[in-house]
Amino acid sequence: MLIVKKFGGSSVANKERVYNVAERILEDYKKGHKVVVVLSAQGDTTDELVAKAKEISSNPSRREMDMLLTTGEQQSVALMAMALENLGYPAVSLNAFQVAMRTTSVYSNARLKRIDAERIDAELERRNIVLVTGFQGINKYDDITTLGRGGSDTTAVALAAALNADRCEIFTDVDGVYTADPRVVKDAKKMDEITYDEMLELASLGAKVLHNRSVELAKKYGVELVVRSSLTQAEGTIVREECKVEKMLVSGVAADKNVARIAVIGIKDEPGKAFELFSLLGKHNINVDIILQSIGRKGTKDISFTVPRDALEEAKRLLEENLGKLAAQRLEHDDHVSKVSVVGAGMASNPGVAALMFESLYDADINIKMISTSEIKISVLIDERDTERALNAIHEGFKDRF
Amino acid sequence: MLIVKKFGGSSVANKERVYNVAERILEDYKKGHKVVVVLSAQGDTTDELVAKAKEISSNPSRREMDMLLTTGEQQSVALMAMALENLGYPAVSLNAFQVAMRTTSVYSNARLKRIDAERIDAELERRNIVLVTGFQGINKYDDITTLGRGGSDTTAVALAAALNADRCEIFTDVDGVYTADPRVVKDAKKMDEITYDEMLELASLGAKVLHNRSVELAKKYGVELVVRSSLTQAEGTIVREECKVEKMLVSGVAADKNVARIAVIGIKDEPGKAFELFSLLGKHNINVDIILQSIGRKGTKDISFTVPRDALEEAKRLLEENLGKLAAQRLEHDDHVSKVSVVGAGMASNPGVAALMFESLYDADINIKMISTSEIKISVLIDERDTERALNAIHEGFKDRF
Repeated sequence: MLIVKKFGGSSVANKERVYNVAERILEDYKKGHKVVVVLSAQGDTTDELVAKAKEISSNPSRREMDMLLTTGEQQSVALMAMALENLGYPAVSLNAFQVAMRTTSVYSNARLKRIDAERIDAELERRNIVLVTGFQGINKYDDITTLGRGGSDTTAVALAAALNADRCEIFTDVDGVYTADPRVVKDAKKMDEITYDEMLELASLGAKVLHNRSVELAKKYGVELVVRSSLTQAEGTIVREECKVEKMLVSGVAADKNVARIAVIGIKDEPGKAFELFSLLGKHNINVDIILQSIGRKGTKDISFTVPRDALEEAKRLLEENLGKLAAQRLEHDDHVSKVSVVGAGMASNPGVAALMFESLYDADINIKMISTSEIKISVLIDERDTERALNAIHEGFKDRF
Repeated sequence: MLIVKKFGGSSVANKERVYNVAERILEDYKKGHKVVVVLSAQGDTTDELVAKAKEISSNPSRREMDMLLTTGEQQSVALMAMALENLGYPAVSLNAFQVAMRTTSVYSNARLKRIDAERIDAELERRNIVLVTGFQGINKYDDITTLGRGGSDTTAVALAAALNADRCEIFTDVDGVYTADPRVVKDAKKMDEITYDEMLELASLGAKVLHNRSVELAKKYGVELVVRSSLTQAEGTIVREECKVEKMLVSGVAADKNVARIAVIGIKDEPGKAFELFSLLGKHNINVDIILQSIGRKGTKDISFTVPRDALEEAKRLLEENLGKLAAQRLEHDDHVSKVSVVGAGMASNPGVAALMFESLYDADINIKMISTSEIKISVLIDERDTERALNAIHEGFKDRF
């Protein structure tokens, strides 16, 4: 079997953890499997390098940031190779140049394009354990790029696809994907399996278990993922196209606080105005999520929508500058909101889910500001202060449906 | 003009020094020159990385050490590019992959083979300041290698040769090459110029100003070097094939304490025994320097020689194991010795130099244990405790000849 394993920065933060991970790697190697390992930078290394850069320049270029930050992963793989060799096993560390990890040109947020598996295959044939730097790539100018936050997950999935791996394990500090954040909801249960689509909805909703792009890539290439803990032997959660056991109604509940609501009041009710509004935001790379349009007074309409909270200031500025052009009267905004969602592949064919969710919130006396639904997701916008209560109330309401 | 500048690790150890170096770089850039800069890892970075490796493994492989250590230079060049950009000037950092810095295969002590100047030329054409990682290269397996201690000097000279540079400046924390170590000999004078050969002898004798290989390479490709301070505007010392001013008798005095003396006593006096002895040491990469053979008692001879002090234990072990084979009676050794030398291109045609050196030592009541001479050098082995006195005595003796 060929197995790709990815370990995050906290899993290799110090000597003890490096050796703990080395043992996890060897479990499979000793069984005769081929093992490829993707590592992130150790512990706080990336943050320390960012601080170093900020000391030199308040606005360092993205190209040079990528050149700087990628040294962290290179240190990780070299140190892990030393640990494995010290335990008596053959290992070889490789960086993005050495595995020809080609990406798009954009710095700090590149996308993987292709990997030349030749070098890795050759090392595996020699029975080497192959350690690959996560998070980084090379663009067409032969410059170093990075894949953005959580990019090492994407590296692992891409390698699993390129190498046609039998298994891709993502090791984290939790032992799988839960029905809700276990730090907030005590009764949260670990799932044995979850579909790519559910995982994508959960990740984009702030579940923070897997990097979204890694799940998209896994779905595209049919790479089965296992999310599991580097500290325990627990089985973890399998992420795949279809779940094998009978599908439960709802797979998870998640909250996202990086949300703000904007309302554009009194837009002239004529065709094209909504398009103008959202194309303006789109041009400036501001993602709009829940959208609600209501009829206003005297031939006008109001459009409310949510944006990431850290994009609120820019969105407000843009809209204020264009109020006239949009033929709107004024703006309102609210950055004390959060989005709570239930996700489940079984939801599409069961209209009772929304009702149960609303009932749970009503029983807990939580007011709903906006609603958005998709095939496998229902989201509500609520007051930020109610977030934790809402998660618990909904989880309790669905307790027999997980 | 195309100028290559090399700055060592202490010159870029912190923010202030990074900006100091940035200003030194800009002096020439602002005059319209093309500037290529070679940097070492910041301050103690390399030592810290070595400590990290040693924590993981007492005997890390050289390949993985090179993978680890080279991240230090990559950080340096990225940070310097940020500083230059922050000052409003265009800069681009490049690592060994990006400049195709090809070396021999051997890790931790590779030799440069060739550089593909294409990328650098293209960046210079765009008026970018080009920052290149020192100390590192890529071997034929596309693995990262390092050039050994002081390897950044070699990188700078190799780049100057490959780019056909007009000038190659090596910046250090002293303002040039001195007639003796100014910390030991108060009257030591800075030299305006020195030949490659003299510099080679001085470097191998422990003058620690320039990495030996960098001088060899400069001599081979006729690259004129300037050794100067990164902290002052002093002119520095020019290293070139022939000095333009009339050659002084002696150019410098240097001491080397990394020396130990071994004597093999009572070797059977027959052909081939000396050859056997030194080929044994050579096979184990132990460099032998001064050699003295004397006639012993009853058809035997004694051979004394010096080795680097850190190779003494291995040399002793090897020789003890082979005493029988060498038909020798016993070993003696002494690791409280040092080698003091005078170097000068004018020496060859002036037989008075040795006499003046011995007289200076005799006057200071310093005993000479061994003597070795070459075309442009005379070395003596003395008691380690006499080193500083010997340097001063010899420097004083030659004071009118520098």
